Amino acid sequence: MGASDHGFMALALELARKGLYSTHPNPRVGCVIVADGQVVGEGWHLRAGEPHAEVHALRQAGERARGATAYVTLEPCSHHGRTPPCADALIAAGVARVVAAMQDPNPQVAGTGLARLAEAGIAVHSGVLEAEARALNAGFVKRMEQGLPLVRVKLAMSLDGRTAMASGESQWITGPAARSAVQRLRARSSVVLSGADTLLADAARLTVRGEELGLDAELTDLAVARPPLRVLVDGRLRVPLDAPFFQAGSTLVASCAGEQGERYRAGGHELLALPGEGGHVDLRRLLVELAARGANEVLVEAGPRLAGAFAEQGLVDEYQLFVAPKLLGSSARPLLELPLARMAEAKALKIVEVRAVGDDWRIIAVPVE
Amino acid sequence: MGASDHGFMALALELARKGLYSTHPNPRVGCVIVADGQVVGEGWHLRAGEPHAEVHALRQAGERARGATAYVTLEPCSHHGRTPPCADALIAAGVARVVAAMQDPNPQVAGTGLARLAEAGIAVHSGVLEAEARALNAGFVKRMEQGLPLVRVKLAMSLDGRTAMASGESQWITGPAARSAVQRLRARSSVVLSGADTLLADAARLTVRGEELGLDAELTDLAVARPPLRVLVDGRLRVPLDAPFFQAGSTLVASCAGEQGERYRAGGHELLALPGEGGHVDLRRLLVELAARGANEVLVEAGPRLAGAFAEQGLVDEYQLFVAPKLLGSSARPLLELPLARMAEAKALKIVEVRAVGDDWRIIAVPVE
Repeated sequence: MGASDHGFMALALELARKGLYSTHPNPRVGCVIVADGQVVGEGWHLRAGEPHAEVHALRQAGERARGATAYVTLEPCSHHGRTPPCADALIAAGVARVVAAMQDPNPQVAGTGLARLAEAGIAVHSGVLEAEARALNAGFVKRMEQGLPLVRVKLAMSLDGRTAMASGESQWITGPAARSAVQRLRARSSVVLSGADTLLADAARLTVRGEELGLDAELTDLAVARPPLRVLVDGRLRVPLDAPFFQAGSTLVASCAGEQGERYRAGGHELLALPGEGGHVDLRRLLVELAARGANEVLVEAGPRLAGAFAEQGLVDEYQLFVAPKLLGSSARPLLELPLARMAEAKALKIVEVRAVGDDWRIIAVPVE
Repeated sequence: MGASDHGFMALALELARKGLYSTHPNPRVGCVIVADGQVVGEGWHLRAGEPHAEVHALRQAGERARGATAYVTLEPCSHHGRTPPCADALIAAGVARVVAAMQDPNPQVAGTGLARLAEAGIAVHSGVLEAEARALNAGFVKRMEQGLPLVRVKLAMSLDGRTAMASGESQWITGPAARSAVQRLRARSSVVLSGADTLLADAARLTVRGEELGLDAELTDLAVARPPLRVLVDGRLRVPLDAPFFQAGSTLVASCAGEQGERYRAGGHELLALPGEGGHVDLRRLLVELAARGANEVLVEAGPRLAGAFAEQGLVDEYQLFVAPKLLGSSARPLLELPLARMAEAKALKIVEVRAVGDDWRIIAVPVE
């Protein structure tokens, strides 16, 4: 416990962040093995089905792991998944001490990995840079704790809060740097979700394009190899199957009616019937379904009606507003279709980050309870 | 000319900035006298009718001004105004060298002050930190060069670009730090201008309240002693004379009809008939009139219609948007009443500053030609 623990855990978090675009549905995890104050092994989890961070770090450390301290950004697993338990690997390597940033957020296994290590005589400690570790995997943590994914709503708007002209004209509100940032938001997400309005107006595909990510070759390859599931909310099945969105690969369509499932399956898509109130898709049930399929982070890239419905129903965890230095005027479309009458009904947010992105600015805001 | 010239001029600009809230209609000017590399005199212009910056600095320097260098943020005047010419005072004091940040922006006298000094055998140089000097007096410079004041539009909005609920409810969108910043914007302005919609909805007085400025006692006293002229644009004279705005002191009312002038004069106000197109006040003519009365900076604190009219007519030099972390929803009032149909008509801006102000954020943006 001390400055050096923090420093080595910060390094482990740096490593974990390399998995930002590729570990889902798994969490991003990093590991550092330290012997006599020296880093002798580093590892990070690349993608599901492949070795966990601890395994990479132990391999690099080899015999030097004996008696060493292992720093891991998440409690080592104690169960057999697609890979053997990391707790066992740490015990077999003869590690003397394990420091974790946080316990496993899955309430059914939280603490069991550390307990297994402690039973084997290893000194264990948890909670170093815990807030940073939780933030890195906020979607995974929410899914484990609540059975829901983290919902991030991305909107591109003018300085006067407008997303498109009244005609629907909306392309290129923001510049290339903002579009690249949106590509990275897609790539880190398990699901990219949109609505019929947007697909009909923009002919959008909502794919991840490697060359627009602005990442190095290794991370680009990892991101492109594990693209997000593209989900369309289309209560009345208005988007035709020959739309670019469907042509770009298999998708999931959430609708109010499921009787056309065969047609969608034939095209490589899945149709999910989730009828809700007022002829609209039940968004909460959709999120529960997506979480059950392993979705940690859902990026909503939709028009004011669908994004407004998520906001109205209190389903949004984070807004990312890309603000272009323009005025689109008062006839233009609103940011969110969200009819409120009194100031007391206003949705309170907290602005957590404001940053220049090319000529545009990005504002990140989260709802306040 | 070199690093030390820049350093002494930066000090002179610091001094000039102390006049931010009190020199109008005059420019803010600072002066530093330097002998043998030491500052021997400092001065700044406090308010119109009182000594110019050079006089204060020369007084402090006394005999040490002989052979010294004087740094002034604006070319010394060579004409008799309410005070004798500063060029003569510098000559009389035996100054050897004068460095100015910029020439007088009045095209009819630009260069005459420096020429007078040069004729007296003084070494003169102009253009040190000129951009900073011009920015400090952007309103004065615009008035001298174009016969128009600088127009700054202040708007308080939610993150979704709304200024009030549909009902008009709008008080306290932003927090106390933002309101204090708006008080300072008022105090630095020659004119604070609003419209009938705002005064009828908010019962606003648009006064400067010393205790809310957040300035030290000296600057607060100077600011309060020289409040901005309050101007109401009210084409159809809808705001009654017993409104708080009128009760708070004498004002200027711009209207389409002037026949009720006597009533307004009796209440200590002035009525100006400036009929324009479509039954609206001619805003450009109003600005010309305000400039003729010495207005350097006009702060527009108005609702979406009047602020939108300034934007529509290309009369805005700077937007100051105070953004509150809230969503007011799509029924709420727009930032600006500005009907545009196509993206190509969008008004392009450049965001020049983004800064946290309490829990709110301030975005400063200027139109791009």
